[in-house]
Amino acid sequence: MSERKLHLNVNLLHSGVYASAWRLPDSDPGAFYDVQHYVNVAKIAERGKFDAIFLADTPAITDRIDLRPFQSMEPTIVLASVAAATTHIGLIATASTTYNEPYNIARRFATLDHASGGRVGWNAVTTADASASRNFGLSNVLEHGLRYERAKEFAEVVHALWDSWEDDAFVGDKATARFVDTSKVHAIDHRGTHYTVAGALTVPRSPQGRPITVQAGGSSDGRDLAAAQADAVFTLSQSIEDGVAYARDLRARAVAYGRPSDSIVILPGLATIIGSTEAEAQRRQDELWDLVPIQYSLSRLAGTLHVSPDILELDKPLPDIPLPANANQTMFKGTVAMARKDNLTVRQLLKALGGGVGHRIIVGTPEAIADDIETWFRAGAADGFNLMPDVLPTGLAAFVDEVVPLLQKRGIFRRDYEGTTLRDHFGLERPPSRYAKRPAAAVTA
Amino acid sequence: MSERKLHLNVNLLHSGVYASAWRLPDSDPGAFYDVQHYVNVAKIAERGKFDAIFLADTPAITDRIDLRPFQSMEPTIVLASVAAATTHIGLIATASTTYNEPYNIARRFATLDHASGGRVGWNAVTTADASASRNFGLSNVLEHGLRYERAKEFAEVVHALWDSWEDDAFVGDKATARFVDTSKVHAIDHRGTHYTVAGALTVPRSPQGRPITVQAGGSSDGRDLAAAQADAVFTLSQSIEDGVAYARDLRARAVAYGRPSDSIVILPGLATIIGSTEAEAQRRQDELWDLVPIQYSLSRLAGTLHVSPDILELDKPLPDIPLPANANQTMFKGTVAMARKDNLTVRQLLKALGGGVGHRIIVGTPEAIADDIETWFRAGAADGFNLMPDVLPTGLAAFVDEVVPLLQKRGIFRRDYEGTTLRDHFGLERPPSRYAKRPAAAVTA
Repeated sequence: MSERKLHLNVNLLHSGVYASAWRLPDSDPGAFYDVQHYVNVAKIAERGKFDAIFLADTPAITDRIDLRPFQSMEPTIVLASVAAATTHIGLIATASTTYNEPYNIARRFATLDHASGGRVGWNAVTTADASASRNFGLSNVLEHGLRYERAKEFAEVVHALWDSWEDDAFVGDKATARFVDTSKVHAIDHRGTHYTVAGALTVPRSPQGRPITVQAGGSSDGRDLAAAQADAVFTLSQSIEDGVAYARDLRARAVAYGRPSDSIVILPGLATIIGSTEAEAQRRQDELWDLVPIQYSLSRLAGTLHVSPDILELDKPLPDIPLPANANQTMFKGTVAMARKDNLTVRQLLKALGGGVGHRIIVGTPEAIADDIETWFRAGAADGFNLMPDVLPTGLAAFVDEVVPLLQKRGIFRRDYEGTTLRDHFGLERPPSRYAKRPAAAVTA
Repeated sequence: MSERKLHLNVNLLHSGVYASAWRLPDSDPGAFYDVQHYVNVAKIAERGKFDAIFLADTPAITDRIDLRPFQSMEPTIVLASVAAATTHIGLIATASTTYNEPYNIARRFATLDHASGGRVGWNAVTTADASASRNFGLSNVLEHGLRYERAKEFAEVVHALWDSWEDDAFVGDKATARFVDTSKVHAIDHRGTHYTVAGALTVPRSPQGRPITVQAGGSSDGRDLAAAQADAVFTLSQSIEDGVAYARDLRARAVAYGRPSDSIVILPGLATIIGSTEAEAQRRQDELWDLVPIQYSLSRLAGTLHVSPDILELDKPLPDIPLPANANQTMFKGTVAMARKDNLTVRQLLKALGGGVGHRIIVGTPEAIADDIETWFRAGAADGFNLMPDVLPTGLAAFVDEVVPLLQKRGIFRRDYEGTTLRDHFGLERPPSRYAKRPAAAVTA
């Protein structure tokens, strides 16, 4: 078995993870709906030999758009544009299992896998936001357990559809007029609790066999979904101990589903603020923090905690708040734990949260950031990171030019791509179609 | 008012409209799932100053894939790839109103309109195929009238969402931290019979304001939908008289909806087989016809007529067949009329239909094809054509190199693009947002 290597995605959040990123002098405020911005960031990530770019998504306005950029454009269209301008970098798009049909998702991602030469991943989310439910005829968000039950069946259908063409079903023989060997194209005939789907897909099996499936929920239901069906997880861990405990739990769940313990790539979110000295990095953090409107930070925190901003007093500790139903539980618990650990006031907590970043933040020199990454990686708290640069593209360019060479020197990150598909980058096998007959030799053996 | 000009789309049907196109020596059988083929054809169309490429679609396998290429890849992903490789040509994708959510469609096409600089069109179809219904949990196709009732409301929602951001809602002022003027972003609060959608869209208003809406059904319900909401129609007319009658009917319906009579671009389908002499064109038709498996032609005809192939005897006239419910009525009536007009046997009808082409076919020299196009155009039977070359890319290249220059010399087709958006090419105004307040001066005037 080859040596374990680090994996890096960049979470391509419009102007950067800081709410104030768009206000820096070099930033383009209109980047959030300019596909060329996404292409530009992807090219920098590809120069840095990253595994993939990652696009989050919610089909609704959920953030304070009066104050900052937000998830706007539909991710698969953005990724198709990026695919055309790049050659190696993986392309992961979020799509909701609650507000789509599995046939459409399977087909769109299979098409994108063909168009990109096998570089696509699907981040399956259940979409907890009430504003999204109102764009799809629902007056309320579906209950957490039901959303995940549907998601699991949804992903089963998608995976079966991706297998519905055997690899050699397309023939295209001009002489005999035989175009497709239909004995190798399979109706999936799925009849489940939530979905009834006949299949087959309209698309021949894609370069990766199945595009990568990513899962991003940290709840028990989310972990169960990941253990059963994900190739990679985008997680939230604020400490090495949390990361190690999460990895142990997830790998045990995967084994319980009959999968190898290393079959899922674990990628916690990591926000970075890089300076050539510690002081310079701190100054950049202060500058970004000063430009975040305080009412924005407060409304984000209130949203995470499912409370009214009015009950949060800036210079007092966080009040006691019960775990709400339908919250993002991982985000809720991590936020409360951070406040309690150092007994922070609300204002101190807001700054520690990066004014609404949500994920762990490192502020420091390239050397310090490389140290942190290596420590987490060697401790087994992460297989890599879903990097959230403070500002895009500048924060990513700094990481690529200054941190990546250190990780390469330490022997934990690739110096060049060794394959062409996202499965290659993640070191994951291309799965055979579930419908393919074993070769005769294997059956008699 | 400027002189009326011809419009040309190319219907980018994988290897070409002939079922046997893939079997010609120059054809690539795998073109149907190779995005580079679509890019290549689009570039040839752009060289020929075409208005747009057009991608048909059904989210299911509906054709005899054992015998020929078929609609496979998801069209919006293909168009995003094509957008990245082209600069002017319009990009029209089909998407079903029966098997999608209006919020998702509005968002995906608005994103594509941004990514392409305003070149996108949505061909709204209701999807009559039973095989599609079974991929989406339905055991039967919805009834024709109900499908169109839903489609009309669906398109209303999509158009309202495209208007939900006023043109100047995005501010992006770094100094004041004002990102979006939310007084110019509007909830649409649609509560209809079939859809309840809050809005606003997540995407700022796109370059065309509203992407072009295309409609392709010839039934009374389809015409009504087109008259109310379409910017262009893809129609089926086998004769100038049919074309003139259709145009008169559609324009009268548009006027009844309060729209100008010339607000819809009428584009009948037109299949072409080009030879440098009449005899060469005939030989090419014979070659293509000889390579179409007869069982394919028969099964296509049987499908159009909603009968079993067994009742069609090759060397006898077409039997009497009643108009079936849920058929494509335009295709059914056109096919029967063609058989009756010249009292054709089934075999003769199959050849006249191009072995399954369905639309009108011209076989001839570039001069003869230009004559035909000019005659239809000047008679008011068409504003242009949805061109269906026999074989792609070769049949399109022949049209671009040999027919387009004739149309340009006759002064009916552009020598270069005069604008950058599909609305520019079609000569259609960019609509204001329905939510925009009139300027004060206009109100007091």
